[in-house]
Amino acid sequence: MTLKIADRATVPPFIVMDVLHASAQRAAQGLPVFHMAAGQPSVGIPHGVTERLKDLLDRDPMGYTVSLGIPELRQKIADHYQTTQGVTIAPERVVVTTGSSGAFILAFSSCFAPGDRVGLAAPGYPAYPSILRSLGIEPVRIPVGPDSRYQPTVEVLEKLGEKLDGLIVASPSNPTGTVMPADELEKLCQWCDANGVRLISDEIYHGITFGDPAVSATRFSQTPVIINSFSKYFCMTGWRLGWMVVPEDMVRPIECLTQNLFISAPTLSQYAGTLVFDHLEELEQRVQGYAANRALLLDALPAAGITRFAPPDGAFYLYADVSHLTNDSLSFCQRMLAECGVAAAPGVDFDPIGGQSSVRFSFARDHQHVKQAVEALTGWLNRQS
Amino acid sequence: MTLKIADRATVPPFIVMDVLHASAQRAAQGLPVFHMAAGQPSVGIPHGVTERLKDLLDRDPMGYTVSLGIPELRQKIADHYQTTQGVTIAPERVVVTTGSSGAFILAFSSCFAPGDRVGLAAPGYPAYPSILRSLGIEPVRIPVGPDSRYQPTVEVLEKLGEKLDGLIVASPSNPTGTVMPADELEKLCQWCDANGVRLISDEIYHGITFGDPAVSATRFSQTPVIINSFSKYFCMTGWRLGWMVVPEDMVRPIECLTQNLFISAPTLSQYAGTLVFDHLEELEQRVQGYAANRALLLDALPAAGITRFAPPDGAFYLYADVSHLTNDSLSFCQRMLAECGVAAAPGVDFDPIGGQSSVRFSFARDHQHVKQAVEALTGWLNRQS
Repeated sequence: MTLKIADRATVPPFIVMDVLHASAQRAAQGLPVFHMAAGQPSVGIPHGVTERLKDLLDRDPMGYTVSLGIPELRQKIADHYQTTQGVTIAPERVVVTTGSSGAFILAFSSCFAPGDRVGLAAPGYPAYPSILRSLGIEPVRIPVGPDSRYQPTVEVLEKLGEKLDGLIVASPSNPTGTVMPADELEKLCQWCDANGVRLISDEIYHGITFGDPAVSATRFSQTPVIINSFSKYFCMTGWRLGWMVVPEDMVRPIECLTQNLFISAPTLSQYAGTLVFDHLEELEQRVQGYAANRALLLDALPAAGITRFAPPDGAFYLYADVSHLTNDSLSFCQRMLAECGVAAAPGVDFDPIGGQSSVRFSFARDHQHVKQAVEALTGWLNRQS
Repeated sequence: MTLKIADRATVPPFIVMDVLHASAQRAAQGLPVFHMAAGQPSVGIPHGVTERLKDLLDRDPMGYTVSLGIPELRQKIADHYQTTQGVTIAPERVVVTTGSSGAFILAFSSCFAPGDRVGLAAPGYPAYPSILRSLGIEPVRIPVGPDSRYQPTVEVLEKLGEKLDGLIVASPSNPTGTVMPADELEKLCQWCDANGVRLISDEIYHGITFGDPAVSATRFSQTPVIINSFSKYFCMTGWRLGWMVVPEDMVRPIECLTQNLFISAPTLSQYAGTLVFDHLEELEQRVQGYAANRALLLDALPAAGITRFAPPDGAFYLYADVSHLTNDSLSFCQRMLAECGVAAAPGVDFDPIGGQSSVRFSFARDHQHVKQAVEALTGWLNRQS
């Protein structure tokens, strides 16, 4: 008897991960790959941290931790809000998670019932709608464009006129890198509170901005669930460590949920997260590196005929309209990888409709690599008819 | 406006994790704690592995891996089935997960639709019903006792007469440590296939047995989802690394789901898992240690008046009926921790009804610690009226 696979498991692939897979296969054949697909820095956690972790590896059996995370780490995260946002967060409201991925599962499960409707910007991070769907929650795509700087502002929401139970906002945004200004974010928090909409504020790219620093929603309201991670600014993608700041009344329900769903986040990663706050200067230098990469792309892409994009305010992505080249971004990116070794993320990953003619270039790698990537890309683009 | 917390987030606590929390608080006050609560070895990964990980920490940026897990690790896991079970598993069917916790989320999401009914033994692992509930699946508790050696055998299921969409079996079982004999497991696989019931075989305690080795359901059918982990036999709890063996037609759906839900399992942990297969001899010695602890408890507990339990065939738990002492196992365990420092898991964690008069003792620690724990426990029990 053939057994079923449940409908909710039939989510679309996270195409960036498929590109990563194809890139790995290409590299295994000895062919060059220029990495502009995955949203991850090529350098890892600061060296000073790894040295101290080696010592811990000798001394600590690396058992489970308490489910909400080791107290020192929760305190360090709370302190980080004081330093960077000037806002006091009780460490009890900080929940350590297995990457922002774990945080999304916990946040969506605890904030939304099956059938609830949650708004999200299109283009946006592809895992949002997939995770929501797998939990029986209805994602409501909100088309955004250059007018609102790719953000679901109050104006956009009022015009949309949809009844929502929740809203996800990401600033800086993935894939566009645009930042919602403080006054717009404050208005959005107020609008959500007034309309009974739970705001999920994805702040994973905080720390990586090229102008004014990004502002946390926790400055404006106590009801949003804040999601963040050590993957991007802290260069710890493979450590799978993230966190949430949650409203007080959600702490215990989320503790029970995470005890059952995850037990605890990886222990060595929690130690690494605790230690990495001692190395912020090194991390700031890396942001300068992303800024240099960004400047390179802002020059080189127009010279190669790619002119339609919003210069990113933060993150390490540039989302370009390539409608003069394709209306099938998936095959376009497959062809680009096969013909010139440049791995980039097809726009269709972020927006099933508008994304057909867009590509996301990640510029998180070292400058030399990005330079080579741009050269390969330019040569290839010049060869296109 | 107060925003809701979704019903599905109101799962009961995983009480063992609360006991772990209380133990940590007690230890922080400088008070002695004897650890018989958490299901984790006190010694970590073999030293030979940590030495090689230090080297990797220097060389590898620890980025994301491909979502199904690094190929070397999937191959090593497949090979392990050849060695231990004499069964050939294609490495493509192996899915690396973030602990068995991640595996349960993926397995339940992909095998069962909301409203489906999944059978599970009571007493059993408390996270099963909680994860099922959080995904809208109905857990159907199957009361089991000494008659079926605490296992949901075909006989038990036929007598139960419930229509099920799925069944979870754990052998060795948590909390009782009982093993389902090969012929019973084969019959169960056939019964599930004949009745359209998806079997989830939780084999996390494989490798830790005190008589015949436990047998994997993958020997008898291609339809079960096999779940396992590096936490128990491999002593890697805090590394959060597990795996599944899934039917061929589930590989791609689960790949897409895990790309979106988890991205990838912790990278350093995946390297550790790959290396740990070179140290099986050391791990076998640890199983001998658990056997010595088990023998100690089988002697000491009856001497302290605890006589009603099934001697465990595997895992590192002993589940005892303490109905002569309490009908409220939660307060009993809290009192035990407060008065003699012995942390154990209240039976109510594993079975909300029958568990009121049971306690689970974990004997995963080193022999000296278990000896001291037994002394403290015996002294305390002798002081009870």
